[in-house]
Amino acid sequence: MRPRLNVITLAVRDLEKSLAFYRDGLGLPTKGIIGTEYKGNKIEPSGAIALFELQGGLILALYPRSELSKDAKMSDTIPSALEFSLGYAVESRLAVDELLRRAEAAGATLTDKPHSRPWGIYSGYFLDLDGHLWEILWNPQIQIKD
Amino acid sequence: MRPRLNVITLAVRDLEKSLAFYRDGLGLPTKGIIGTEYKGNKIEPSGAIALFELQGGLILALYPRSELSKDAKMSDTIPSALEFSLGYAVESRLAVDELLRRAEAAGATLTDKPHSRPWGIYSGYFLDLDGHLWEILWNPQIQIKD
Repeated sequence: MRPRLNVITLAVRDLEKSLAFYRDGLGLPTKGIIGTEYKGNKIEPSGAIALFELQGGLILALYPRSELSKDAKMSDTIPSALEFSLGYAVESRLAVDELLRRAEAAGATLTDKPHSRPWGIYSGYFLDLDGHLWEILWNPQIQIKD
Repeated sequence: MRPRLNVITLAVRDLEKSLAFYRDGLGLPTKGIIGTEYKGNKIEPSGAIALFELQGGLILALYPRSELSKDAKMSDTIPSALEFSLGYAVESRLAVDELLRRAEAAGATLTDKPHSRPWGIYSGYFLDLDGHLWEILWNPQIQIKD
């Protein structure tokens, strides 16, 4: 494998609500839900999906849990918030605090107060509407250009 | 939020084994486990982590589930393979089949035979050592430069 990734797909219970959370609540640009012409059925997954284009060709996708289950031929499971975390770096401690507040206002759940780690990172976590972990972090070693 | 992502952290049960899977099994370059000087304790997480630098400043991190649990102040959960999927695009159907075989040889579990979707993607999924889903896909609309 080459050191790249093309898509991160988050399994969501309610595509419209999750789209609103990421688009309206957090401000990520998107064309909204596409692929609705592929209806699917009990066996075949629907194609309806929401995509966010990130840097370097990376796509963040929101896709219903029920459809990912069919597409990957995996049985449904009890949701777990400890599988992965998505890290988003900002330019200061203050920006960490502000973005966590914004996420909370948009419907996310903070897991703890943001705090510093011995290795120099200041961060805090929130859970999105489906319990997926996001870490909002300030790392003096990461330069934020935007 | 800006349309970017800095880190994807995968929670793993055994950091050394997962590192071997991604580095030796799948061939992703890495400096190996770093941060071992931060020992942690029952409350504070250890800093030991394995990082893979991907495109556009994106980092794929392997971090023990027990430590992510402490860092995010989240209780441990029953693992779930339906939370997310990481998509890796290759240049042909044949390359999908080949990479899935390579992943299986490295210890991954295929969930199904790769197949085509009505929206034009040919793909198959594997589960890594911790049950995290990866979709290896050929999408004629994605140009692979490497």
